[in-house]
Amino acid sequence: MSVLEYMHALGQQARAAAAVLAQTPTASKNAALVAMAAAMDAARPALLAANAKDLQAGRDNGLTDAMLDRLRITDAGIDAMMEGLRQVADLQDPVGEISDMAYRPSGIQIGKMRVPLGVIGIIYESRPNVTIDAASLCLKSGNAAILRGGSEAAHSNQAIAACVTQGLLDAGLPEHAVQVVNTTDREAVGHLISMPDYVDVIVPRGGKGLIERISNDAKVPVIKHLDGNCHVYLDDEADVTKAINIAINAKTRRYGVCNAMESLLVAESRAAALLPEIAQHLREFEVELRVCDQAHALLADTSASKLVPATEDDWYTEYTAPILAIKVVADMAAAIEHINKYGSHHTDAIVTENFTKARAFMTQVDSSSVMVNASTAFADGFEYGLGAEIGISTDKIHARGPVGLQGLTSQKYVVFGDGHTRP
Amino acid sequence: MSVLEYMHALGQQARAAAAVLAQTPTASKNAALVAMAAAMDAARPALLAANAKDLQAGRDNGLTDAMLDRLRITDAGIDAMMEGLRQVADLQDPVGEISDMAYRPSGIQIGKMRVPLGVIGIIYESRPNVTIDAASLCLKSGNAAILRGGSEAAHSNQAIAACVTQGLLDAGLPEHAVQVVNTTDREAVGHLISMPDYVDVIVPRGGKGLIERISNDAKVPVIKHLDGNCHVYLDDEADVTKAINIAINAKTRRYGVCNAMESLLVAESRAAALLPEIAQHLREFEVELRVCDQAHALLADTSASKLVPATEDDWYTEYTAPILAIKVVADMAAAIEHINKYGSHHTDAIVTENFTKARAFMTQVDSSSVMVNASTAFADGFEYGLGAEIGISTDKIHARGPVGLQGLTSQKYVVFGDGHTRP
Repeated sequence: MSVLEYMHALGQQARAAAAVLAQTPTASKNAALVAMAAAMDAARPALLAANAKDLQAGRDNGLTDAMLDRLRITDAGIDAMMEGLRQVADLQDPVGEISDMAYRPSGIQIGKMRVPLGVIGIIYESRPNVTIDAASLCLKSGNAAILRGGSEAAHSNQAIAACVTQGLLDAGLPEHAVQVVNTTDREAVGHLISMPDYVDVIVPRGGKGLIERISNDAKVPVIKHLDGNCHVYLDDEADVTKAINIAINAKTRRYGVCNAMESLLVAESRAAALLPEIAQHLREFEVELRVCDQAHALLADTSASKLVPATEDDWYTEYTAPILAIKVVADMAAAIEHINKYGSHHTDAIVTENFTKARAFMTQVDSSSVMVNASTAFADGFEYGLGAEIGISTDKIHARGPVGLQGLTSQKYVVFGDGHTRP
Repeated sequence: MSVLEYMHALGQQARAAAAVLAQTPTASKNAALVAMAAAMDAARPALLAANAKDLQAGRDNGLTDAMLDRLRITDAGIDAMMEGLRQVADLQDPVGEISDMAYRPSGIQIGKMRVPLGVIGIIYESRPNVTIDAASLCLKSGNAAILRGGSEAAHSNQAIAACVTQGLLDAGLPEHAVQVVNTTDREAVGHLISMPDYVDVIVPRGGKGLIERISNDAKVPVIKHLDGNCHVYLDDEADVTKAINIAINAKTRRYGVCNAMESLLVAESRAAALLPEIAQHLREFEVELRVCDQAHALLADTSASKLVPATEDDWYTEYTAPILAIKVVADMAAAIEHINKYGSHHTDAIVTENFTKARAFMTQVDSSSVMVNASTAFADGFEYGLGAEIGISTDKIHARGPVGLQGLTSQKYVVFGDGHTRP
């Protein structure tokens, strides 16, 4: 069988499974999720052995320690995946939810019913736990899934897939509800994103290069997550304590995540009061500062060696590292202009006590999450109450921001009558 | 200036206008819509003269009478466009609507705010009134629009565009909020759908060929409307009067529309009781019947000459004509299987008095509108209370069914805190 034939076979099987899943009661989907966790628990030795093969191959192929770390499955990691499955089982099922039912003057009653998208293709890089995250969210939202993981994690992903299939069968669900692509041939990705008859939407998870390539080539809609170049703007009327706490938290809570602050903007009138203290704290975290001239003048005395003049490129950069760009701006209007120009429309925050400015910032900043007096670190599916997320969308259509179960569904119209005809 | 440079210039201007429109108060948008209507009223002679040029060229190029009809602007047509503008002005502004605000255990308060998509590209064929429909819906939803009409209507569209621009300027809004592409070069369409920096979404309106071509080539998301192959299923437990009224209305109200019934499915146990009477009514409307063998046996005696055995192709066909395919099916399950296989996921209805079957049909039929005891003719933005529609989406992501103002917006997250940081 050619790779094309193989992918079409997966697609046909997924389409058939999706028709069943769309009608599957919540209790059966939950039973499958719990059964998957049980299967993983029983398969610990097999999971660790499969992962050991990937790790060995990774070492042979010269993967960095960081890459090997992302690839590694531990007993604690298995516990976390099992816990994730149970958490998704506990989430409310979005499928079938009917909203906005209302009578129209014609006498018909109309509302919207939430329904699965159908078949979702997920393309991801080395972290094998994505296999479980994606499988569980797609299943709970009534969608069939075709998962294509990174070749470095091939053995691990197949071992996890065996547990997923076991869980599906134990609960009496179609075994093709979740399929993990069983070839590392790169051609498979090209087919997966080009078969609109079998796949309704693609969710790529990985580096910006991967996502741009997929978006460009796909023949089906793509829910994509590009950069997270997040900003915090400290306004003239910022409360000092809130400003400092939020700036420190947004930068230092975690460096490698997409919701970390990458640029700090400070109103000119408050720069002298706020920046030296913030820099002082950041020095303790060994954060390198890339600063505009005005900030440089304010910080030259107080800061340690890691003070570097910012270049134009810095304003565009998502560091995902202990580096922070700092710019002094004239006022909120300048901050908003900077954010909309250099930012990635992911998550941006203002710190201010001024009601009118808070409203204006919320409206004028064109990002998937806009915050007032809160740390950008909150931009996350769990924190938002979605339960889990399959990614954070920086798209404008369909879903913006953290994408949970609801983002994997859409709404159709339902119309009720008593024999109504249209005049 | 090359066509590419011209289209990029339109794109840049649209992007700049979109930033202003996103912040424009409702009252200003409404004032512009009303001013456009006034400008059209004042420009009647110019509109009719421009249209006369298009009609003459159309006749010279051998357009059919039906095509010339679609192209024609009359005084009554101008009245209708003006009324459309005023109706859109009366609609509630979706922009800025905040919903689902709730506190999370962390103490942050989170909700969703409705925001414009940005720049919308509309590609349409000969009907010049689409220029006004599209311009008004995009403006009211806070989006900039780039409109590319058919070359047959070039003079008419430019004359309408002049009124739109006048209305924008009268209300103090950016003149580039709505731009009509001023070249009939086909290359312009290729550029319009390939500039993600300037255009956020494409809405094509026209024949299936046009839409498929655009969807295939576009580098930005497309909200598309393919076939309207709509079904009515008359169940074992259908009320006779409702069944007959709905079947007649869904077929004969209008033939050329996407929500017209194209196939009638009848439960075997009721075929003898229902089909002859329905055929009798349809004969009065001179509707040709393409029927399965069972239906043929039932109708051979009663029907006139227009009774034709159906082929496999008939089940797939959107006739948009006084033709109806009829099939006798074993039961509801067979009807649903038929609809999901042959249908276009547009609008499908069941007629039944059975509660359980109504629920099952609603869930199992995968269409943008699913109806119980109501005519498919109701699938329409006005009937659904959307006020107006830019099209009916047969897509699964973002918007399904009639797309009104809300379908031209998306939701971003807004997060409020009192200095909250994430542990």
